[in-house]
Amino acid sequence: MPFVRISLRHGTSLEYRRAIADGVHRAMIEAIPIPPDDRFHVITEHAPDSLIYDPQYLGVHWSDRVVLVQITLSFGRKPQQKRKLNKRMAEILAESPGLPSQDLLINFVDTSWENWSFGNGDG
Amino acid sequence: MPFVRISLRHGTSLEYRRAIADGVHRAMIEAIPIPPDDRFHVITEHAPDSLIYDPQYLGVHWSDRVVLVQITLSFGRKPQQKRKLNKRMAEILAESPGLPSQDLLINFVDTSWENWSFGNGDG
Amino acid sequence: MPFVRISLRHGTSLEYRRAIADGVHRAMIEAIPIPPDDRFHVITEHAPDSLIYDPQYLGVHWSDRVVLVQITLSFGRKPQQKRKLNKRMAEILAESPGLPSQDLLINFVDTSWENWSFGNGDG
Repeated sequence: MPFVRISLRHGTSLEYRRAIADGVHRAMIEAIPIPPDDRFHVITEHAPDSLIYDPQYLGVHWSDRVVLVQITLSFGRKPQQKRKLNKRMAEILAESPGLPSQDLLINFVDTSWENWSFGNGDG
Repeated sequence: MPFVRISLRHGTSLEYRRAIADGVHRAMIEAIPIPPDDRFHVITEHAPDSLIYDPQYLGVHWSDRVVLVQITLSFGRKPQQKRKLNKRMAEILAESPGLPSQDLLINFVDTSWENWSFGNGDG
Repeated sequence: MPFVRISLRHGTSLEYRRAIADGVHRAMIEAIPIPPDDRFHVITEHAPDSLIYDPQYLGVHWSDRVVLVQITLSFGRKPQQKRKLNKRMAEILAESPGLPSQDLLINFVDTSWENWSFGNGDG
């Protein structure tokens, strides 16, 4: 059910992007949790001038490796679960593909359970 | 007022994408309802590795024809209206352009009435 | 903390798009307000058939210069602040890069304070 949008710079390899997406998914399976087959991701790549950030925000140094992850998910996850998800995602992506943890922005958008239709117009 | 983001794979025709967008819009006119001139859509096309889904989720078989429709709209629609919208959208898109109904993901994000400005900085 | 998605047509210059993004950011600094280093923008450019709007809605004439600005931000801003932001954004973008004010759609998506992680999996 979470709908994930991953935005990053142009110029990464297919393997790199796949590792990012797989890592985001694995972190959600472990931390929220979600079933392994509950996966809808859209990855978009952007030119440097179209992915804009300040090089320092909240004491964190941001670089052109920045990855913006926006996750729309149903209400009901507790702040503690989201904090665990944030931590796990940063850890997993640091392992593979080696994303510097300071370059990871995560944003959740909560929505209602009735706000999803998974095929056939059901829901 | 709904703001519609439609994400699908690369390689469809202009006519196909137009039929998808027109069908989404027609379903909203019929089911929510919205005025016919209330239309803001962004369509994005993605390479297979950038549009990720599990081939089976909730007993539904998903294919590379998957269409992800994310609709930001104002609070106030009842679950019954959203269910009707889901059904109509699946029906209309199955007719034209012939989208298999199991390949349609719909997600709503509710927002406040005050969260819109339609031109001139009004609202 | 706001996460900004700016969608506009293909064919503008880098300077034009930068002025749009800078103007959106400046308006938020003045009106919400946000700190100047709190900036995460994604700009996407679209072919005419992928950026769909009705040429007249709510008495406003929309053209292919339409700019759709969707801002995810934390709860707590008052309607008055959002109205001020809408006004300032339209004014600033009309000055530079000269965007006709009627071509500006703004949409806010409110989210919780706990729904952000700004680097290192914190938050």
